[in-house]
Amino acid sequence: MGSLGPFQRKHKLAVVGSGNWGTAIAKIVAENAASNPDLFEETVEMWVYEETVEVPKDSKNYDPSYAGPQKLTEVINRTHENIKYLPEVQLPVNLHANPSLEDTVKDGTILIFNLPHQFIIKTCEQIKGKILPYARGISCIKGVDVNESGINLFSETIGKTLGIYCGALSGANIANEVAREKWSETSVAYDPPHMDSKAPTPQRSPSSSQTNLVEFQHKDVSGKISDTKLQALPSAYPPVDHAVLKAVFHRPYFHVRVVNDVAGVSISGALKNVVALAAGWVVGMGWGDNAKAAVMRVGLMEMVKFGDQFFSATIDQRTFTDESAGVADLITSCSGGRNFRCAMHSVERNLPIEEIEKTELNGQKLQGTLTAYEVNSFLKNQGMEDQFPLFTAVYRILEGTMKVEDIPNFIER
Amino acid sequence: MGSLGPFQRKHKLAVVGSGNWGTAIAKIVAENAASNPDLFEETVEMWVYEETVEVPKDSKNYDPSYAGPQKLTEVINRTHENIKYLPEVQLPVNLHANPSLEDTVKDGTILIFNLPHQFIIKTCEQIKGKILPYARGISCIKGVDVNESGINLFSETIGKTLGIYCGALSGANIANEVAREKWSETSVAYDPPHMDSKAPTPQRSPSSSQTNLVEFQHKDVSGKISDTKLQALPSAYPPVDHAVLKAVFHRPYFHVRVVNDVAGVSISGALKNVVALAAGWVVGMGWGDNAKAAVMRVGLMEMVKFGDQFFSATIDQRTFTDESAGVADLITSCSGGRNFRCAMHSVERNLPIEEIEKTELNGQKLQGTLTAYEVNSFLKNQGMEDQFPLFTAVYRILEGTMKVEDIPNFIER
Repeated sequence: MGSLGPFQRKHKLAVVGSGNWGTAIAKIVAENAASNPDLFEETVEMWVYEETVEVPKDSKNYDPSYAGPQKLTEVINRTHENIKYLPEVQLPVNLHANPSLEDTVKDGTILIFNLPHQFIIKTCEQIKGKILPYARGISCIKGVDVNESGINLFSETIGKTLGIYCGALSGANIANEVAREKWSETSVAYDPPHMDSKAPTPQRSPSSSQTNLVEFQHKDVSGKISDTKLQALPSAYPPVDHAVLKAVFHRPYFHVRVVNDVAGVSISGALKNVVALAAGWVVGMGWGDNAKAAVMRVGLMEMVKFGDQFFSATIDQRTFTDESAGVADLITSCSGGRNFRCAMHSVERNLPIEEIEKTELNGQKLQGTLTAYEVNSFLKNQGMEDQFPLFTAVYRILEGTMKVEDIPNFIER
Repeated sequence: MGSLGPFQRKHKLAVVGSGNWGTAIAKIVAENAASNPDLFEETVEMWVYEETVEVPKDSKNYDPSYAGPQKLTEVINRTHENIKYLPEVQLPVNLHANPSLEDTVKDGTILIFNLPHQFIIKTCEQIKGKILPYARGISCIKGVDVNESGINLFSETIGKTLGIYCGALSGANIANEVAREKWSETSVAYDPPHMDSKAPTPQRSPSSSQTNLVEFQHKDVSGKISDTKLQALPSAYPPVDHAVLKAVFHRPYFHVRVVNDVAGVSISGALKNVVALAAGWVVGMGWGDNAKAAVMRVGLMEMVKFGDQFFSATIDQRTFTDESAGVADLITSCSGGRNFRCAMHSVERNLPIEEIEKTELNGQKLQGTLTAYEVNSFLKNQGMEDQFPLFTAVYRILEGTMKVEDIPNFIER
């Protein structure tokens, strides 16, 4: 992939977040910036929450002249290794660790968000008004924010807070495997509003980078249409379309399919964790591969149904069955994912899953249990618990009002 | 499930085949015959290819008064254990092992075929004309018979040879897990011709068991319509419909969904083995769960596409994504199935898969390699190899003209 046309400006890529998955994605993005010099500025900024680290003596990047405590950003920029969150993986030299959030994003035309979901709002509030008004975003944060009254996609939360359009990336991607360039696939979902739906496309002079505020009708995830204003990308830049996004993320070892269905990709990433809990319990019971496959089949069906029921306006049900973010991520999550493993151990060791969580996850919380509660609260509010027996069973087992042994009959409809 | 109405006659169930899977299915069917006395005759006949066996001394069914070589049917009928093909599983007392094929099927109204596919035609030829002309069949034989010119379902081969209608059973079912009553699901596909499509439903007196030859238009798997004659079931019997078939196969540990799509259920059962080979190779390479999920996703898509392309007249693509015979069986096959395991070992040990087949399978042949060749020959003949890159890659790797390393780029479209 080279030039996409005779544009005056190149896109500047910035990554917000530098954990395990954040750094793995930043590595990919920086590799692509370097290999597509017609499209992208070479240097990719990555925001690193600054902390003090010490390079271990057995690290290949240990250097006695830099012994003792140092700043993580300085270590990354000197050694091109995130020794804290992605050790032993060489990062491209054009990836620049930046301790300043504002400085990281200020020139970025394509902002990639990859940080724990509890920090999203705070982080976006901090940079609101300090980014290019015509920037576009991609959220790599898995899952959705479900509550009694509705479901918010993290991409929409980011977009609304910053006043930009934001898509999503999700797939069957274990960060350490991706970072080590083991082949995998992912789904990028991007479907910006058709800006000409209400107002004509503004006149753009090809040589100008002047921006235009375009009013358009935005259909949100639930199908509700509202009037929104977004800044059009100056015509000096290559339009941010599926081809450009593929150029941002696709690597020989990381195969990207770009689709329109942001809601489907995001909801898959949340619901599969609920299914993974059930799969883990069933395997923990020693019921074997048939039983695990049965739970996954029913879970996939409920994922499709959930999309049909609550997002029929925007969702494409084939996202669940066809895309990496759907069936493939479900398979990966039910093989070795943390929700699956903790659930399996909780049955094998006859301990509550919270106990396993504590000992196995080193203080981190399982996404699946949280989502199971959120989804149940939402379904209860809709009076639809019995339409989703597997999701309901998972909630009840977590609550202690149902047993794993009851799953087969409960989900048999 | 009890009486389905005031019928004079009960269905008589017979199982043709008594291998590992045949005996497991016969166990289920006999349990259901016993628990549905209004619908079914109590005794279920199971045809056993007679051979001489010896009960091992450490078997719980060892009896010194019956030491030495005995007939397998006699051992089964005395001990209610198929010590050769399903040892350590207690069979119902109403399951009768019968060494005579003709005697097994002669009174059966519902015939269940569960034997290695290479014996189907010979077996059917042997009983042709010796069964009830209005019997119905269910084939539990996985896969399809593919050749250059077309694809034949085993259920259609059985049906045509015997002049009866035959459906299919297939699902995520490892025989030993099912036999041990570990919970699983399966798909039964049954869609007999609408006999009233050409001729009016014959007058049936409810007390008579008189049979009627009904002419109807039969749409075969490829959508071709032909005139066929089938014998109507005498009205003294409960009609063989989805409810009755559920009563034949459904157990608390074996959950049945009955669907219409015989072609989809059968084709899934064949193609998933081709995908399992690719999944095994990729795992053998040490590429991890992401890569395996990617191969399975692409494989599932090609399964759907194969159905759409060649069987659009009859197939429901949701069979692949929604049913146990589809996605669930694919998952099971890519977890511990023999095609998956042999492929994985062939990469790990750097040996041709035929070598692994010899050492691991004790003389049996892998279904997946056979199907991969058959499918390729068919696709080549249609000029459509490049439309199915994963299936084509599997064939070429087996042929030695492509490497496993080439899979990611080859299937990236």
